[in-house]
Amino acid sequence: MVVQKYGGTSVADPDRIRAVAEHIVRTHRQGNQVIVVVSAMGKTTDDLVRLANDVSQDPHGRELDMLLTAGERISMALLCMAIMDHGVHAVSFTGSQAGIVTDTVHGKAKILEVKGDRIRETLTAGAVAVVAGFQGISTTRDITTLGRGGSDTTAVALAATLGAEVCEIYTDVSGVFTADPRVVPEARKLARVSFNEMLEMAATGGKVLALRSVEFARNYNVPVHVRSSFTWEPGTWVVEEDPTMEEAIISGVTHDTSEAKITITQVADRPGVAAALFRALADESVNVDMIVQNVSTAGHTDISFTVPRDDLHRGLTVMEKVAAEIEASGVSYDAGVARVTLVGAGMKTNPGVAAKMFEVLSNEGVNIEMISTSSIRISCVVQESDVETAVRALHSAFELEKAS
Amino acid sequence: MVVQKYGGTSVADPDRIRAVAEHIVRTHRQGNQVIVVVSAMGKTTDDLVRLANDVSQDPHGRELDMLLTAGERISMALLCMAIMDHGVHAVSFTGSQAGIVTDTVHGKAKILEVKGDRIRETLTAGAVAVVAGFQGISTTRDITTLGRGGSDTTAVALAATLGAEVCEIYTDVSGVFTADPRVVPEARKLARVSFNEMLEMAATGGKVLALRSVEFARNYNVPVHVRSSFTWEPGTWVVEEDPTMEEAIISGVTHDTSEAKITITQVADRPGVAAALFRALADESVNVDMIVQNVSTAGHTDISFTVPRDDLHRGLTVMEKVAAEIEASGVSYDAGVARVTLVGAGMKTNPGVAAKMFEVLSNEGVNIEMISTSSIRISCVVQESDVETAVRALHSAFELEKAS
Repeated sequence: MVVQKYGGTSVADPDRIRAVAEHIVRTHRQGNQVIVVVSAMGKTTDDLVRLANDVSQDPHGRELDMLLTAGERISMALLCMAIMDHGVHAVSFTGSQAGIVTDTVHGKAKILEVKGDRIRETLTAGAVAVVAGFQGISTTRDITTLGRGGSDTTAVALAATLGAEVCEIYTDVSGVFTADPRVVPEARKLARVSFNEMLEMAATGGKVLALRSVEFARNYNVPVHVRSSFTWEPGTWVVEEDPTMEEAIISGVTHDTSEAKITITQVADRPGVAAALFRALADESVNVDMIVQNVSTAGHTDISFTVPRDDLHRGLTVMEKVAAEIEASGVSYDAGVARVTLVGAGMKTNPGVAAKMFEVLSNEGVNIEMISTSSIRISCVVQESDVETAVRALHSAFELEKAS
Repeated sequence: MVVQKYGGTSVADPDRIRAVAEHIVRTHRQGNQVIVVVSAMGKTTDDLVRLANDVSQDPHGRELDMLLTAGERISMALLCMAIMDHGVHAVSFTGSQAGIVTDTVHGKAKILEVKGDRIRETLTAGAVAVVAGFQGISTTRDITTLGRGGSDTTAVALAATLGAEVCEIYTDVSGVFTADPRVVPEARKLARVSFNEMLEMAATGGKVLALRSVEFARNYNVPVHVRSSFTWEPGTWVVEEDPTMEEAIISGVTHDTSEAKITITQVADRPGVAAALFRALADESVNVDMIVQNVSTAGHTDISFTVPRDDLHRGLTVMEKVAAEIEASGVSYDAGVARVTLVGAGMKTNPGVAAKMFEVLSNEGVNIEMISTSSIRISCVVQESDVETAVRALHSAFELEKAS
């Protein structure tokens, strides 16, 4: 049993849909049970969001979900028609028909359960099941969407629940690279990457797989094969770490230019102050990413954190209010920052990676504004104008263009 | 309780959607419980059909229905958003969520049952319920569509089941006219027309209401008010015949240029022959409309009938096969015919209408090729090139421009 997920660019027009249908039919004829998860065609979802904003100043969440789910309905029906032209039966299922039950949070619902009875019946009857990505039905029987990248999550959830051997994610790139090839032309496609590395990459700017789908794949140990629907060549396998193999020290360099930095200066260094700050942000649904607190000087400290640029305005409003309450001296921000990150499972057992990273950036004259680390990742916030220089320098210094 | 149905032109773009939302909010604020049925925006359904034909040589019925129902999903979600901008809560429902249960005939499903529990709950909670027209869920839990004009049927079915006082059908014309105003500029808007007259008009080329919705309205005695969403002026009421009022002899002239005529010549005039002919057509799903059989000469007769032009090719194929079997002398056809029809409930008690109709056509030099009548209708098949002349001459001769 194979789950194949096709993104928007893979089904952007009738020609692409027919090409994808052929590949599905080939996989089916090789003796596989095939479940297909499909996104909306090309820019359909963006177009529908624009339409909603044209019609309403504040599109209602339930209705926005109702609207957006029209996109996958179109692509999945067309894909089934194209498959049937080859004499293979195919049946499309909405998230609701596939039994993808979610919570009631419109716009970013979480999957609670995958029933999948109708999919199993369809496969048993020898047909291909085509499921709408990105959507489900809530416990109150309303249509929900899973947020950006939600189709990846649908695919992995189906693979986990139905026991597929592999979840193939077809996209417009041929796999996971050591860096963004648009920034680093020498970037190398990885044959294999661990779930944990992929998680760090997805969290720090790698756009190939959505973060939540990788969490799901890791938690249920679903092997994911990221590959191209344009060349059909083998791509990158995202799998469990294999302790018998030597890990590459560094698997890749990612970067992200979608965040902004907020700093609260001269905060009293006593218990409860940080909690008050971040509780206030959470209450306003501002997503905080990196948090750095400097050492305390004379009982005061500076706290910096990054937020998505879209949340900057709301974040500042909240912070100015809270800063007054906790008697901090001020709030400043920088919307022109970027993050560069090294990811590698081998980093754990190789000291000195951080030191080398800082030296490389220093040699390029790139100033580091914030640093944050995990056991398999080091992130630095730098000026956005420096980020491509930083990515290229790190890629070269760690020799990522060479197969490990 | 009011059901309001808005057709595709009424919700063709964001401006139109906002105008319709305002009208719904006004109706709601006047103290009505409002159920809205909405069609797909503008030409969306046609665009989706074109996409299906681009992708597949023979789009599968189940998948075509899945595809087409995306259209109403988009319009109803947008309409709800626009209503909520006015501070009135609105909730959209797919055919399935509204409990519109149909048979399993994809593309022209029949409504078997309307549950409507969620709609009742929504109305009781003080919100507007917006329901996707044209669609339902089959007894095998597949998405179905009701065929062209299906949104009218959805609206009338909901009005009947939920006990609405009126079903308002908003469209791009201001009501039902004595003839097509594009052909007869003096055509007059009717204030009132009976279900039976409306049925005959819908069956013979009047495009304002779909035939099945009128049957439904008649069977459940749901008053229908056909009116314009562009001017919002009072339109035409379609209601039960009122025996206390004097009926207009003629309510309108309709015409239809979508049919073709097939003739089987020299058919043996014995029992079972006609049955064999029309059984063969029915088996191929060819919709036969008018049937005329001439008097028998020397034990043989000619049988003519009309079919939709789209079915002409299939109809001829069937007929050529059957004609050989029943030893008829030949099959001929004419794709350039049209039908002109007089409709009027008062015709029943006014002899001489047919005679006058034939004289009028004769005076205009219009040759009559077939005649068919019911108690409140007379139809003549003429050459398509003559049909507008015929409509104008009849409208004038019966003085339909004058209020009765």
